[in-house]
Amino acid sequence: MPRQDTYNDKPALEYLFHPKSIAIAGISKDTAKLMGGRIFLESLISAGYKGKIYPINPGGGEVFGLKIYPSIKDIPDKVDYAILAIPAQSTPQLIIDCASKGVKAVQLFTSGFSEIGDEEEKQLELQLAAIAQQNGIRIIGPNCMGIYCPRAGLSFSDDFPKESGSVGFICQSGGHSIYSIREATMRGIYLSKVISYGNACDLNETDFLEYLTHDPETKIIMAYIEGVKDGRRFFQTLTQATKVKPVIVYKAGGTEGGTQAAASHTGAMTGAERIWNSLLKQAGAIQVQSIEELVDVALLFTYMSPTKGRNIALIGTGGGASVQAADACSKAGLTMPILPAEVRQRLKDIYITEAGMSFKNPVDIWTRGGPDTVKKAIRIVANCNQIDLLIIHVPFDIQATSYRIKRIRPYIKSIIDLGKEINRRAAVILYSIIMLKSKQAALEVQAALGKAGFPVYPSVSRAANAISKFTQYHQQR
Amino acid sequence: MPRQDTYNDKPALEYLFHPKSIAIAGISKDTAKLMGGRIFLESLISAGYKGKIYPINPGGGEVFGLKIYPSIKDIPDKVDYAILAIPAQSTPQLIIDCASKGVKAVQLFTSGFSEIGDEEEKQLELQLAAIAQQNGIRIIGPNCMGIYCPRAGLSFSDDFPKESGSVGFICQSGGHSIYSIREATMRGIYLSKVISYGNACDLNETDFLEYLTHDPETKIIMAYIEGVKDGRRFFQTLTQATKVKPVIVYKAGGTEGGTQAAASHTGAMTGAERIWNSLLKQAGAIQVQSIEELVDVALLFTYMSPTKGRNIALIGTGGGASVQAADACSKAGLTMPILPAEVRQRLKDIYITEAGMSFKNPVDIWTRGGPDTVKKAIRIVANCNQIDLLIIHVPFDIQATSYRIKRIRPYIKSIIDLGKEINRRAAVILYSIIMLKSKQAALEVQAALGKAGFPVYPSVSRAANAISKFTQYHQQR
Repeated sequence: MPRQDTYNDKPALEYLFHPKSIAIAGISKDTAKLMGGRIFLESLISAGYKGKIYPINPGGGEVFGLKIYPSIKDIPDKVDYAILAIPAQSTPQLIIDCASKGVKAVQLFTSGFSEIGDEEEKQLELQLAAIAQQNGIRIIGPNCMGIYCPRAGLSFSDDFPKESGSVGFICQSGGHSIYSIREATMRGIYLSKVISYGNACDLNETDFLEYLTHDPETKIIMAYIEGVKDGRRFFQTLTQATKVKPVIVYKAGGTEGGTQAAASHTGAMTGAERIWNSLLKQAGAIQVQSIEELVDVALLFTYMSPTKGRNIALIGTGGGASVQAADACSKAGLTMPILPAEVRQRLKDIYITEAGMSFKNPVDIWTRGGPDTVKKAIRIVANCNQIDLLIIHVPFDIQATSYRIKRIRPYIKSIIDLGKEINRRAAVILYSIIMLKSKQAALEVQAALGKAGFPVYPSVSRAANAISKFTQYHQQR
Repeated sequence: MPRQDTYNDKPALEYLFHPKSIAIAGISKDTAKLMGGRIFLESLISAGYKGKIYPINPGGGEVFGLKIYPSIKDIPDKVDYAILAIPAQSTPQLIIDCASKGVKAVQLFTSGFSEIGDEEEKQLELQLAAIAQQNGIRIIGPNCMGIYCPRAGLSFSDDFPKESGSVGFICQSGGHSIYSIREATMRGIYLSKVISYGNACDLNETDFLEYLTHDPETKIIMAYIEGVKDGRRFFQTLTQATKVKPVIVYKAGGTEGGTQAAASHTGAMTGAERIWNSLLKQAGAIQVQSIEELVDVALLFTYMSPTKGRNIALIGTGGGASVQAADACSKAGLTMPILPAEVRQRLKDIYITEAGMSFKNPVDIWTRGGPDTVKKAIRIVANCNQIDLLIIHVPFDIQATSYRIKRIRPYIKSIIDLGKEINRRAAVILYSIIMLKSKQAALEVQAALGKAGFPVYPSVSRAANAISKFTQYHQQR
């Protein structure tokens, strides 16, 4: 039974995201000693957390200029939130102490509970849940990274951006949440709130889904889920959520191997893959099959105008690349109409010959005739009224190395210059990035394209797959 | 009808790979002027081609210290091979001139033939084929990059390695051939001969397949094919080839969009996808679905011991990553047996606790307990007789940035130290490589692992997919 403070009570969990003071247990004055708590301390400092931070260690001392308190009881002021990175056996007593101190919620980085798969650890986790229930304190975790909320200066890695965005993320895996925040940042989208919640002994995915559904800052929800505690409540909540905003769900652990892995990871019961697929569809969620795909799809909801159209034009360079790209689009259910004769004629007018190129679709013109010509050509194709979306694919390691990278930049500038004319219906693919120089150039170019409002992908198949799900979503509305 | 000099005559095409002199038409003395021929000239020089090179341009002059001859007839010596990068309309006459000069084969970089899709250009291509037939000269192309044969100093990009290897590659696309050579090099495999053959107006995929089948230097054949001219002969030849060595085929352009794209690329008739799938299977070829996958699979034939076993152990870090990895393995048809109690006990003996890890399979221990402990743990898992293969997955961007990259190297060293104990049955996955520093470190680490005999992949799903095809190949033999 969900408790009153989280159910049917919209902003109930708001306090989790704006604590005025945080205690961190499991930290050492010896900064060379890598205790779990230090990750959180450094992250909060880097994120510019404005509240008070109270490190805890029985040995006392000082760390980063902050006094270390021997116990939670010794902290002279009020504490809203606590992060526990201490051995599992010590957690029950510390949570009780936190509750007496008036702490509203604790996050347990600590692992070694139900994910071990043995009875003793399972019982310990049940004990935590009971303590929370009896003492009026909420638990995030155990076995998790907790909360990233840039607006409040909450973070669990020292490199996460301070910019706040419109994507909320519920993530059962700490590693996946870290990866996704970094990946999203590199591709120009920012997050409102991320909750890495691990074993979910108390607060769970449904509580956070409900919160994000009503959070005005969050326009798009991503979720990584291994298993849910209460399927009925989850699907009811999800059905409500998808009415308000797009919810992209990666349900992992559906295979035999995955079930095994998830049980060892968060103690989750993963459930049958087929049932999940059908229930997610019924609830109106957008289902994806990998952690990378979550960002792939969220990127379109951030950058692209809603569209039901599936007619795309592929613009790029290289015949073989065009064939593979076209196959990828077709397999994703996108259509590539042959460009009308008058459009082809206009392309012929600017290029004189079609030799070594193609004006049909895929359009193979990239880097032909110089950046201005390419810009004109893209505009001609974009203005064709049979085309809903553009996929512009840009290979880095082409031809002889000496002509390579320096030639790319002016063409990227052509795309950026087209800006608002095309950016809400164009995806850019940066691929064939093998050498370090190309990798460096690609990162710069990706940042510039992201800033100019273009979603960037590492392969046509990933873009086509995301576009297909994006258009399907709008077709069903 | 195939001509006598290529059919049932094993070393017939050997001369293509060892010309003593090469003429290049379509080159300018003005090195700033980017004419097609210059790519080949620079590539041959970089590759250390030992024969004579004769640049041709009606304007004469000198380039890179070489005299430019006004025409092929003006070259005083014998010419074995010619590369033509001149306008399409000029090619028929020049090929006739080459034949009179005694040139055995010409490669046409020139495009603007059947791939345009118009009647005039199609006729021009037919004319070339007729000229070849009538004048006893062979044509590679048109619309192609020609030959890379490091042992002979033949190349079409100035950065291709000089090392020769055991993988031969028949590639209808120039761009794909360049990409694959670079990609293979970065992952530590080298090529014997690569033939980019484009529209195949005369010599075609089957001629080259036959050659590579009998080439003692080539142990593994990769092929990228859009369409074939004579299906019956191709499948007969392929059936013979797969009896002698593994043949990995990426047949592209099977979808509606792909068919369109291939026609515009090489004028190829792609044929129905389902028929191709069944014929490739029947012929004993290993079919893959992307250009990246060609190298993925070739890597295993180069590095791994033949195995029919599909029991894998996944070793890595991160619960979420392990779940996604396990799903990928299961989907690829690999099995992940839960490690026997005695193996788990041995892991517990060295780690004391299982908290935050997992010893079941997936094994989540990476970077726990230091490099020596990890090395011991990998050895324990590798020695389990229920395990055929190891997949070791290494994330780069984990936890807080400050602890990241410098921590990875000693663990990679642990894998390399294990070397011959495990390298012929282990694949290493380097992933979550988001930031430039990580990209740089990953390239270095990849090179070191390749040198130590480990096949490296960018994701578990790509490795699992390649391993599945590799074991299937050995199961069927």
